[in-house]
Amino acid sequence: MTDQTLRSAATADDLLTDFRTMSKFGATAAGGVERQAATPEDRANRAWLRSWLFDRGFQVSNDSIGNMFGLYEFTPGAPYVLAGSHLDSQPNGGKYDGAYGVLAAAHAADRLRRKYRAAQAKPPLNIGVVNWFNEEGSRFKPSMMGSGVFCGKIPLDRALGELDTGGNAVADVLAGSGEQGEANVVDPRTQLASYAEIHIEQGPILDKEGIDIGLVTSTWAANKYEIAVHGAQAHTGATSMPDRQDALYGAALAVVAVRELADRFGENLHTSCGQLTVHPNSPVVVPAEVRMHFDLRSASQELLDEADAVLQQQFSEIEVKADVRIEKKVAHHWPEAQYQPAGVAVAREVAHELGLSIREIRTLAGHDSTNVKDLVPTVMLFVPSVDGVSHNELEHTADEDLEKGLELLTGALDRMIHRAL
Amino acid sequence: MTDQTLRSAATADDLLTDFRTMSKFGATAAGGVERQAATPEDRANRAWLRSWLFDRGFQVSNDSIGNMFGLYEFTPGAPYVLAGSHLDSQPNGGKYDGAYGVLAAAHAADRLRRKYRAAQAKPPLNIGVVNWFNEEGSRFKPSMMGSGVFCGKIPLDRALGELDTGGNAVADVLAGSGEQGEANVVDPRTQLASYAEIHIEQGPILDKEGIDIGLVTSTWAANKYEIAVHGAQAHTGATSMPDRQDALYGAALAVVAVRELADRFGENLHTSCGQLTVHPNSPVVVPAEVRMHFDLRSASQELLDEADAVLQQQFSEIEVKADVRIEKKVAHHWPEAQYQPAGVAVAREVAHELGLSIREIRTLAGHDSTNVKDLVPTVMLFVPSVDGVSHNELEHTADEDLEKGLELLTGALDRMIHRAL
Repeated sequence: MTDQTLRSAATADDLLTDFRTMSKFGATAAGGVERQAATPEDRANRAWLRSWLFDRGFQVSNDSIGNMFGLYEFTPGAPYVLAGSHLDSQPNGGKYDGAYGVLAAAHAADRLRRKYRAAQAKPPLNIGVVNWFNEEGSRFKPSMMGSGVFCGKIPLDRALGELDTGGNAVADVLAGSGEQGEANVVDPRTQLASYAEIHIEQGPILDKEGIDIGLVTSTWAANKYEIAVHGAQAHTGATSMPDRQDALYGAALAVVAVRELADRFGENLHTSCGQLTVHPNSPVVVPAEVRMHFDLRSASQELLDEADAVLQQQFSEIEVKADVRIEKKVAHHWPEAQYQPAGVAVAREVAHELGLSIREIRTLAGHDSTNVKDLVPTVMLFVPSVDGVSHNELEHTADEDLEKGLELLTGALDRMIHRAL
Repeated sequence: MTDQTLRSAATADDLLTDFRTMSKFGATAAGGVERQAATPEDRANRAWLRSWLFDRGFQVSNDSIGNMFGLYEFTPGAPYVLAGSHLDSQPNGGKYDGAYGVLAAAHAADRLRRKYRAAQAKPPLNIGVVNWFNEEGSRFKPSMMGSGVFCGKIPLDRALGELDTGGNAVADVLAGSGEQGEANVVDPRTQLASYAEIHIEQGPILDKEGIDIGLVTSTWAANKYEIAVHGAQAHTGATSMPDRQDALYGAALAVVAVRELADRFGENLHTSCGQLTVHPNSPVVVPAEVRMHFDLRSASQELLDEADAVLQQQFSEIEVKADVRIEKKVAHHWPEAQYQPAGVAVAREVAHELGLSIREIRTLAGHDSTNVKDLVPTVMLFVPSVDGVSHNELEHTADEDLEKGLELLTGALDRMIHRAL
């Protein structure tokens, strides 16, 4: 491989042109996208990608949870090196999150296809592009659903049965759009050699430090909780204050407790409550029930356990103070974990060749690679996000950073199809 | 009038039978009703009442905001004494709130119709029953909409343009169900002599003290607020805690501040937050915006003003603490006000005749009579609520208390159509 092969101006322009085209699916006025899993906007984007891959000679098919694979064989029957991310977005989300990673994977795979066809050479492993279904988890829970099913962490039946707030099941929205395919398009046990993913950082470190690429070495551990606060429905005007069992007062105390846990444990703990729903939600009714989702994230499992214990104690105090009952359960957990050092080393070598500046970095967000790395050696790369803004329509990454990321991903995949991992 | 005329067992049974029939419209499994304004369940109940009144010789028509009037003339052209309340309910509400008052008014008016027809006598004032539209304010804001428009406190156009959360306008749901009539079915300036309303207490005082009837002497003042908390949408996992502008954290602090205001000012202040909506409400997104409704109620306007000032200061502190912006506006206000002492005196005399125990009482909840009393002399009566439970499916008033209330209301109306007020 030479830099010249990959760096033709025409190819680089293609990525940016294609990215702008793709960003029109579900585009919002403020410059973001609204393209939640299996919505018409997501389907339109998927159809566009399917054509793009098909036109370039990739064999495109979906698996039974709606993951889309575009496969290209150099050596018939050999395992695949997969690269990808997800096309679905958050509500009023940014256009880079996930979508850049899928498009960069498609361009990288196509560059390698052209390179080896031109050279009439046959790398020992094959290449594939993947768009994982419902990474965001905003419409259907949990997040990272497609990669979770692929890796055997989420039972297929459970995922297919998940409902959105409108009562639509995953199975129905997939079947209704013709997006549900067959099991084992790529068998994760026998046909997968390694995996690579590139993503925007969704944090400010690379941008602040002026570094081209982050080599992801590990994930934070996360506990994701669902809680229900149970009170008693009553008239807001007439019910005396001591008689109230106000579920929203209890929930508000819980939101404050979750946030102040982070203040107490310092920068090694992130806590969030993003979703909260009040019943019956009438201005003159003391709320009967509040349901909320929140999470605790840390690099340290020990600290996470300690924070959980503190929170449990605080919830018991809130139950007394607000005269409510709190049901708390851990809906999802992933431990702190390392990406394979061999993958980090491959990416470092390519960066050195390309003259790109790098640093090692941890990911606080979950990614599909968080699942896949537990099956096969995985390379996870970050490009900078301006000011770390993400899950926001103003999310932005500079064009030249998108191009540098594509170059590094292409180089890494080139080594991976030659069994570097 | 003699007690014998009114107290026939058959008539008393009718009230309870009719009440049970009416409680089937929108009945919930837990014994309450779900009959928000202009829903199919509310319409069915209205249609039932329309037939009931029509069959007994009342002239039934709606006004332009959907208030339903059943009018009966003793003396052609004379002004009306109106009695009524509202048939709409809260979500998962109780079956007595409002509905009992409308049915009791219909039965009382019909008893007087029969009494004077039998006697071939002509009282100097006419009688009418009214079902005020959308008293609850859960589907369309503000509450007490129908009586507010009737009394000129809410412009008709504004009320007709109000939207529910599904985007349906009052004008459209009224027109769609044929419930929108003509202006001035009863002209409030020239055709209204006085008004009476009976309602469950929605508080525990009468039940605790074992008293039959409460004579309402005054209302608490109320400030109803809408606030919007503005933050910045971000990724929950990746965004560092100091960088967050979490609208839900700000809103939770506001809910706690509103509640703790009541603890600070003691039993003369009630505070509530019943409605809160989070955007975008995704588990992995730091909320961009939270909208909420809350209210402060007190017998003292001075205390209400003081509480408002304290809250304003606390909201300023919350803006700094959570790095959010809070927009606060008073959506609705009603001052502390007296019911006419002459009306209280009339009710007291009737109670004495009937041998019912009474006490004077203040209403903390708003009622349609809160509006009408500012136009004409008004009698407001309470029957006991078991344990004060209200806006709840378990709301309950004993059958014999329902009957006693009807007797008192009938006696008061009998005096009112003879110009007692």
